[in-house]
Amino acid sequence: MSTINVGIIGAGRIGKIHAENIAYFMPQAKIAAIADLNMTPAIEAWAKSLGIPKALKDPAALMADKDISAILICSSTDTHADFVVKAAQAGKHVFCEKPVDLTVAKVQSALDAAKKAGVKLQVGFNRRFDHNFRRVRDLVESGAVGTPQLVKITSRDPAPPPPAYVAVSGGIFLDMMIHDFDMARFQAGSEVVEVYAAGAVLVDPAIGKAGDVDTAIVTLRFANGALGVIDNSRKAIYGYDQRVEVFGSRGAASAENDAPSTVKLSNESGVIGDKPLFFFLERYKDAFIAEMRAFLDAVASGKPTTVTGEDGLQDLLVALAAKKSLAEGRPVKISEIA
Amino acid sequence: MSTINVGIIGAGRIGKIHAENIAYFMPQAKIAAIADLNMTPAIEAWAKSLGIPKALKDPAALMADKDISAILICSSTDTHADFVVKAAQAGKHVFCEKPVDLTVAKVQSALDAAKKAGVKLQVGFNRRFDHNFRRVRDLVESGAVGTPQLVKITSRDPAPPPPAYVAVSGGIFLDMMIHDFDMARFQAGSEVVEVYAAGAVLVDPAIGKAGDVDTAIVTLRFANGALGVIDNSRKAIYGYDQRVEVFGSRGAASAENDAPSTVKLSNESGVIGDKPLFFFLERYKDAFIAEMRAFLDAVASGKPTTVTGEDGLQDLLVALAAKKSLAEGRPVKISEIA
Amino acid sequence: MSTINVGIIGAGRIGKIHAENIAYFMPQAKIAAIADLNMTPAIEAWAKSLGIPKALKDPAALMADKDISAILICSSTDTHADFVVKAAQAGKHVFCEKPVDLTVAKVQSALDAAKKAGVKLQVGFNRRFDHNFRRVRDLVESGAVGTPQLVKITSRDPAPPPPAYVAVSGGIFLDMMIHDFDMARFQAGSEVVEVYAAGAVLVDPAIGKAGDVDTAIVTLRFANGALGVIDNSRKAIYGYDQRVEVFGSRGAASAENDAPSTVKLSNESGVIGDKPLFFFLERYKDAFIAEMRAFLDAVASGKPTTVTGEDGLQDLLVALAAKKSLAEGRPVKISEIA
Amino acid sequence: MSTINVGIIGAGRIGKIHAENIAYFMPQAKIAAIADLNMTPAIEAWAKSLGIPKALKDPAALMADKDISAILICSSTDTHADFVVKAAQAGKHVFCEKPVDLTVAKVQSALDAAKKAGVKLQVGFNRRFDHNFRRVRDLVESGAVGTPQLVKITSRDPAPPPPAYVAVSGGIFLDMMIHDFDMARFQAGSEVVEVYAAGAVLVDPAIGKAGDVDTAIVTLRFANGALGVIDNSRKAIYGYDQRVEVFGSRGAASAENDAPSTVKLSNESGVIGDKPLFFFLERYKDAFIAEMRAFLDAVASGKPTTVTGEDGLQDLLVALAAKKSLAEGRPVKISEIA
Repeated sequence: MSTINVGIIGAGRIGKIHAENIAYFMPQAKIAAIADLNMTPAIEAWAKSLGIPKALKDPAALMADKDISAILICSSTDTHADFVVKAAQAGKHVFCEKPVDLTVAKVQSALDAAKKAGVKLQVGFNRRFDHNFRRVRDLVESGAVGTPQLVKITSRDPAPPPPAYVAVSGGIFLDMMIHDFDMARFQAGSEVVEVYAAGAVLVDPAIGKAGDVDTAIVTLRFANGALGVIDNSRKAIYGYDQRVEVFGSRGAASAENDAPSTVKLSNESGVIGDKPLFFFLERYKDAFIAEMRAFLDAVASGKPTTVTGEDGLQDLLVALAAKKSLAEGRPVKISEIA
Repeated sequence: MSTINVGIIGAGRIGKIHAENIAYFMPQAKIAAIADLNMTPAIEAWAKSLGIPKALKDPAALMADKDISAILICSSTDTHADFVVKAAQAGKHVFCEKPVDLTVAKVQSALDAAKKAGVKLQVGFNRRFDHNFRRVRDLVESGAVGTPQLVKITSRDPAPPPPAYVAVSGGIFLDMMIHDFDMARFQAGSEVVEVYAAGAVLVDPAIGKAGDVDTAIVTLRFANGALGVIDNSRKAIYGYDQRVEVFGSRGAASAENDAPSTVKLSNESGVIGDKPLFFFLERYKDAFIAEMRAFLDAVASGKPTTVTGEDGLQDLLVALAAKKSLAEGRPVKISEIA
Repeated sequence: MSTINVGIIGAGRIGKIHAENIAYFMPQAKIAAIADLNMTPAIEAWAKSLGIPKALKDPAALMADKDISAILICSSTDTHADFVVKAAQAGKHVFCEKPVDLTVAKVQSALDAAKKAGVKLQVGFNRRFDHNFRRVRDLVESGAVGTPQLVKITSRDPAPPPPAYVAVSGGIFLDMMIHDFDMARFQAGSEVVEVYAAGAVLVDPAIGKAGDVDTAIVTLRFANGALGVIDNSRKAIYGYDQRVEVFGSRGAASAENDAPSTVKLSNESGVIGDKPLFFFLERYKDAFIAEMRAFLDAVASGKPTTVTGEDGLQDLLVALAAKKSLAEGRPVKISEIA
Repeated sequence: MSTINVGIIGAGRIGKIHAENIAYFMPQAKIAAIADLNMTPAIEAWAKSLGIPKALKDPAALMADKDISAILICSSTDTHADFVVKAAQAGKHVFCEKPVDLTVAKVQSALDAAKKAGVKLQVGFNRRFDHNFRRVRDLVESGAVGTPQLVKITSRDPAPPPPAYVAVSGGIFLDMMIHDFDMARFQAGSEVVEVYAAGAVLVDPAIGKAGDVDTAIVTLRFANGALGVIDNSRKAIYGYDQRVEVFGSRGAASAENDAPSTVKLSNESGVIGDKPLFFFLERYKDAFIAEMRAFLDAVASGKPTTVTGEDGLQDLLVALAAKKSLAEGRPVKISEIA
């Protein structure tokens, strides 16, 4: 099997994670170049230490490089869709961080470009590759829970983002719960057809002033008849709370949080265990590796990617419907959005 | 402290449970008489074995008995409100099984009668006395979870009732989820102001034909700003699933199911623990005792009951709002009902 | 089925527990009389409240009462064996609190008397009736763990007894670990043939001055080839620690502690659960009921009791062997004791 | 900080694990060469893929290489001590896989050589670096459990080694329980002064024929007065069982097994969780990384290593005492061995 030459656009936190994971764990791939509009000596030194031969400013050079067959898009969200289009037109397979875009039209254009070019497009919904959630899905697929009837997701962050971020991110449904919409669709094995969103500002009034909520409960109705519910909070004082449950006719599969250790201290106060792993870098460390491996496997084998561009589009539609539901105080059909 | 003489109306399953609990565990009370329109020799023999001196057909005799100071109403739901009124008019304290009635008007009349007579009225929402849920509430009251932001309740039965029952019970919100509405209000320490109900028929089509759903997710908005969500299923194959979680600014308190034992079997298949306690008789055995003890304590001390008639009314309003929400496919304010 | 008339000797804590359990939960039996050398008005009042017709000083009256068919011996340990003999000679079935005696000769005389009289003799090793340990044993009996290879018991008290008690009780192996020896034999389904005891004074120097240890680890070898280990401490600051594990060729069954609730509080400090139920009255509440029911069932059915006099004798032999092992610093065979 | 050049002796399973961990995760070190008496083209190819410049047959070349400052000894046990001596004499710091040797004299000679040369010597007791056991130790060191009184270790393998291995390994105490002796000393923070070993052949008669046992319980007495107990089985059908508990005057810290996921399936059979991680490669994956990082840190900083040669010696003494105890059927003092 020939080596896959990879180009990376964006050397921020997530770009670096993917680069290091490929360098350390994926002998089937080589990072041929990394590009960042804000290339710095520090990034150059880091790239060198990983054995990446080129650290550039201009992503265009990656697109033009004949030896590169796959591009990872890890730049800011507003640039994603354009880079997908350009990479696809250059015949590169594309791994694009989530979300592809905040508008349906641009996501659609990216999907069209990838389809037309016949290249793979995987979107970075890394949680599908989490060991716990993957195990739940395996149980569902095996028939162990029977017909899914309820999908329940708890997803709470350890600390809220700055209100300034909320203003540009698209808000809680587009920057946070979109992961859970993807998870819900993944677990239910069915598309969402209707949502109802209830929200409140209970964590930080500044988030409310920025026009968003920080606490939300969203009810989902799936095409296969199942129901779902997601709760989000921007701040769980005990850390990152990431749980999933699928309840069906033959049983229920539920994933609890991961913790740094299994140790319990029993004393006069009670029986005290560890808090959950702190945040997504800790919790989804292995999931980031697994998603990249899956992408490279899809590129190498020619088989479909696990999280497609179409998934990214559907997740966006659900998030936009939730936003509309919150604004209008009524259940909203996904068909109203497209 | 003088003994409280109790009269019981209804010698069905729940009437018998209360009678036995008083006879075995509550020396502060004596059962002076039990009345059942369908009095049988078997009930008479059972009453005798408990040392109950009178087993009658006509509840009127209990109302007229000067020695009786408290009446337990354990007859069929449609008779509850009338018996509350009569007992109150006779100056008896009243413990009434839930629901007081399926209509707001009749519940209100019962409350008015109790208020006018100056007698206590406790409604049989026994789950407030469950050791797990009481512990959650204690943590909330102690401030350990800070300001409550989310209340989550999972409540699933091991097997659905006969469809014929659903037709007269008022449906899932009035016969099943009403317990959870009461629990939600109890845990939030606040009244529900709006609900949104999503429902589906996933367990038994006959329930759908009877005009009800068997699976439901209801979102709640509380007066204090917190949000809540309840999921119900008429059939969990693994048994009675009764969990509660209160999430707040300083932490989360969550109650898991009780099981018959703590034993785990580790073998080639995995690590296998017990299913939850089978159904409400097993799970809430001690809660039935505790609620009766609380009622008798309130009678003896003159202090307010733990679950008041007003609680029963509010729970009914929420249930009716949920029913309306499901029918109309929109969030419904509680103020629309009254 | 005719009612079993029961006489109770000893109205201390454990005598009262058995009396109340029979009065409340066992309609198949009636307490005809209770005798206590230190009969007081308080005990008389309590007996009256339970409907016990006679509260006496002299146990001889119970022995002479033709209507009484079963005697519960709940007096001080030094009187047990003599009462067993007298009751047996009077043709009464006997439930005797543990231990029957601290000497092999007196236990043997009690067993002989019961055997000669053809009456049942059950010894009060209540833990065999605990829901958790019974479940472990059921799994072992069902073959789910295969051939037992290791039996592990952790048994720690919340607080040490007064040193004065230790001086007369026979010490940790005879007053505390004897329960665990019985549990080990019960779970292994085999007799102990050799023990090695290691002990230390780590909790209270006064216990050491009284000639005993307060912390001990005892290794067991069973006739069927399996090994066992028990650890005891007189003081676990987090409460009563009662765990059992049976490991075998096909799996392991392990029982964890029971707690007052399943509630977990997640906050900045960790995930905090309840301590175990405080002490034996809380933990073994239902086991006391179950053992008495088993005794009455054996009396009524004529079938063997669950914990026989022979069990009590074997447990004593193991305890004496452990005491000798500790004193001599070497493994001791049970055959050295008898 | 200058890079540490490392030489590795032995390219078997454990040698490869250390090589890959250094190559992937430890930029502070470079593998300058690897030597294996049975060097093969496959090993050469693997070494090349990791960027190791030299793959040799003769370890002498590593000893002679001036650029190499640290040697990892991952060859067969019988060669360990000699290589330690040679490496020390060449002025290299040494990481030596456990055990250093099966005889006290050779271990002592290795320690003497390291001491004389003033080089670091770390022995590969990787479990000290396990996240769970490290957390237990941290709690002990913090004072959270007070004065340690009991140390309990369960350590069971998923499958027995071939009987032929047992014949040369030194047996269960020297090849398996030696890890647990090290863990016990680590957790107790004190040396073992006496052991009593009980053993049985319950898993495989061929192990018995090879002169060893496959099931053992060993009682430990520590210099600080605490007691300990370890149970080993060569075969736990549910997988690798690795648990540790430290019980003390102020509480108990206990580590449960790690599992591949937190997912529970609730169905008609019960509530089913994952088995433990399969074996040491899965369970101690991160511990192997952490121990190597600790070794390199000690080399770089000049501070003591975490697991010293003296630890290796003490562990061996305890293992030999256990072997003697089993053979002679009596408790054996460590002072009898040296």
